Amino acid sequence: MLPQHVRERLRAIVGEAYCLDRPEALVAYSYDATPMHQALPDAVVMPKDTAEVQQVIKLAAEAGIPVVTRGAGSNLCAATVPVGGGIVLVLNRMNRILEIDEQNLTITVQPGVRTSDIHQAVEARGLFYPPDPGSMVVSTIGGNIALNSGGLRGLKYGTTKDYVLGLEAVLPNGEVIRTGGKLMKDVAGYDLTKLLVGSEGTLAVITEAILKLIPKPAMQRVMLATFANLTDAARTVSDIIASRIIPATLEFMDQGTLRVVEDFKQIGLPTDAAAMLLIGQDGDPETVHRDVERIASICRQNGAVQVKVATNAEEADEVMTARRSALAALSRLRPTTILEDATVPRAAITPMVEAIQRIAAAHNVHICTFGHAGDGNLHPTCMTDARNPDEIERVERAFEEIFAVAIELGGTITGEHGVGIVKAPYLEWKLGEAGVEVMKAIKRAFDPNNLLNPGKMFARERRNRVVVNHAQR
Amino acid sequence: MLPQHVRERLRAIVGEAYCLDRPEALVAYSYDATPMHQALPDAVVMPKDTAEVQQVIKLAAEAGIPVVTRGAGSNLCAATVPVGGGIVLVLNRMNRILEIDEQNLTITVQPGVRTSDIHQAVEARGLFYPPDPGSMVVSTIGGNIALNSGGLRGLKYGTTKDYVLGLEAVLPNGEVIRTGGKLMKDVAGYDLTKLLVGSEGTLAVITEAILKLIPKPAMQRVMLATFANLTDAARTVSDIIASRIIPATLEFMDQGTLRVVEDFKQIGLPTDAAAMLLIGQDGDPETVHRDVERIASICRQNGAVQVKVATNAEEADEVMTARRSALAALSRLRPTTILEDATVPRAAITPMVEAIQRIAAAHNVHICTFGHAGDGNLHPTCMTDARNPDEIERVERAFEEIFAVAIELGGTITGEHGVGIVKAPYLEWKLGEAGVEVMKAIKRAFDPNNLLNPGKMFARERRNRVVVNHAQR
Repeated sequence: MLPQHVRERLRAIVGEAYCLDRPEALVAYSYDATPMHQALPDAVVMPKDTAEVQQVIKLAAEAGIPVVTRGAGSNLCAATVPVGGGIVLVLNRMNRILEIDEQNLTITVQPGVRTSDIHQAVEARGLFYPPDPGSMVVSTIGGNIALNSGGLRGLKYGTTKDYVLGLEAVLPNGEVIRTGGKLMKDVAGYDLTKLLVGSEGTLAVITEAILKLIPKPAMQRVMLATFANLTDAARTVSDIIASRIIPATLEFMDQGTLRVVEDFKQIGLPTDAAAMLLIGQDGDPETVHRDVERIASICRQNGAVQVKVATNAEEADEVMTARRSALAALSRLRPTTILEDATVPRAAITPMVEAIQRIAAAHNVHICTFGHAGDGNLHPTCMTDARNPDEIERVERAFEEIFAVAIELGGTITGEHGVGIVKAPYLEWKLGEAGVEVMKAIKRAFDPNNLLNPGKMFARERRNRVVVNHAQR
Repeated sequence: MLPQHVRERLRAIVGEAYCLDRPEALVAYSYDATPMHQALPDAVVMPKDTAEVQQVIKLAAEAGIPVVTRGAGSNLCAATVPVGGGIVLVLNRMNRILEIDEQNLTITVQPGVRTSDIHQAVEARGLFYPPDPGSMVVSTIGGNIALNSGGLRGLKYGTTKDYVLGLEAVLPNGEVIRTGGKLMKDVAGYDLTKLLVGSEGTLAVITEAILKLIPKPAMQRVMLATFANLTDAARTVSDIIASRIIPATLEFMDQGTLRVVEDFKQIGLPTDAAAMLLIGQDGDPETVHRDVERIASICRQNGAVQVKVATNAEEADEVMTARRSALAALSRLRPTTILEDATVPRAAITPMVEAIQRIAAAHNVHICTFGHAGDGNLHPTCMTDARNPDEIERVERAFEEIFAVAIELGGTITGEHGVGIVKAPYLEWKLGEAGVEVMKAIKRAFDPNNLLNPGKMFARERRNRVVVNHAQR
């Protein structure tokens, strides 16, 4: 529990209604979307503006209290679980779209704005904000920025980082900085904007963002292609890219995922297929039509069992919903679903998927794989039961082997979910000791007292699910 | 001069022929493309590979000797002038294209590869590396990465940073790190890749880079439009963007530049026009034709005096050459040419150009302005004489006022040239004290002994051209 005088000051800053420390409130903010990670905070604080954030951070710095910034808590790496106790700083009240600037093609937002609200607001003006993480109907833009969220349009359009032009942020010492601006080019010093994107709340609290917009593509089309084996599907992906087409979306589902999704949604997916690709293109009509035809032809040349181009908006929605429901469908199978995101160079998808299947069999665990084939970002997803320690031990070992293979193939331990607690033990596999040391030095440069989101990114040596809060003050 | 034992060890590392300390060699590496900045190094060292770079850096760290990494020296912010003396580390021997990977759409290069050689190599395979800085026929990719170079295609395609996927770099302590990879998505820790891009050789020595490629656009077209006044030209830029077209190129020249270029190239530019736009589009033929027609129509609606669409490759070349020769043409007028790059949000181009003209008149200095209108990146260019201290004093004051206006308009002190020595005194104007302090802390985290490119980015309080080397060991 926080000292009395700290609690009083927090209440004075944000108001009685926005500083919670009843047990039920603390429990509500003790976990996020990541299974098997939980830790109680000491208080939940909901500031209404940057000035209040600044006051909370200054108070926390004086009192030496950890601060974990949180939006919707939809992340999958336990990035917002308060393992060091302290304050959970919830930014959902700061949820205003401050400006859509149609001349400079930017939108300025507070961190608590929902991602899908940004989509709606800008598309109503003929503009487009491409990043579309799976959680976009609940996730906040602040969370997307903190985690550098990806999505289904990453292949052609990139990720959140590619759209953040400027930030306002409160440093661990309580100072406010402003980086970048409504500027397509800015080389005034180190790129603090891009450094803060993906820093998982460990370097600063993001309180405002300027995002880049682009014109909304005139049209979009999607298609499904199913394959009798994995190799045909993977070769299709390579051949599409080799023919100099960059689809907006190029998604993969293995047989396991396909069957579960069909069982859940019943939209007529061929459950005997070994693999499915969901391919979308957008842009000017001529380009889209030509690309769709060429892609369909490449699918057929590579032995696709079925190629189905959505002919209207309902069919297209159905197809996209099938893909977007993969996680929900898989979650119905067993009590616990662990979604990972080992990522490899696009050309290494076949060996990666094959390795996942081999490793799952060897450890007798149930893993289905789907993901963003076009950018090599796969989501091997394990259906398991957190109450079975023996099985969980095997799951952990299987994922360890999967990460090791990803690294061997020139990939990374996380493509879009972040490090948080979950990947911290493996960070050195990707970066080497020297790389991790540099990152720790950057962390110390910003936050010498380790108060912003402690225990993340550089945490313990081994995975350790279900963490209890041992930092009682 | 370096101690005898250090000179001997440098020779042992790189070989006699690649360690120079004769006066004429030191003079050759005492300046770069930035006028009025010069300082002698103590030695010039040309390593052939990463291992040699690593050994040089370790030796420099032990002996406490500054190291300034250098490619072609074509930068415009004095970033490679060795103001602290020490070693100039020239990476031009590391000039191999290591791999073009057509499946992953990447090119892996050593830092000494020329930018235009990358263009040629990938375009021969139907691929495209968009960044095209003005110096691209001499500049090296290592220099482009260190400075985050822009170019004429930034509006649609972004700058160097948007294409760097992975780096190998030698840290100031001699350790080698590898960041990123052939990966479109990677969120394993802080983004060291983007932090090193644009870090001006102050954080690490970049020894290898993986760059993203895209399919080469099927066609490109360019046009010229001239205007009787600045406002019409600026409104045209706004209207093009407002109509949801993002041209590949959207360049601006004021009357002063236009006249000098016409005098130099004699291609029939209307020298009575107040402003000229050079507009290019690329992509699929239907899109390009439609965009070119719409843009031409927008130009006419805004009162363009003349709109001339290049009808063949020769005409297009002529138009692009006119723009690319602006600096060369202006340089013929007076002994010294100072090219700046104040940058503002696109919508603020008119007030910025008007302010430049007003400030130039007030200080009685000759400034012509051209630049990348589409991304608000302007190059006010002053024709002056370094030998006239009174005039130079007025030039400095004029540029100071120009930077101040850029900041007021929500812009920055440098869009694509970098901070180096030239902009260091103004960095705080853009970032505030807290922002600069964070950057200094990052610098210390990487390089606690301040050996990599000292005296840059955070240098003296005031501009001070013609710096002498006062660090004699």
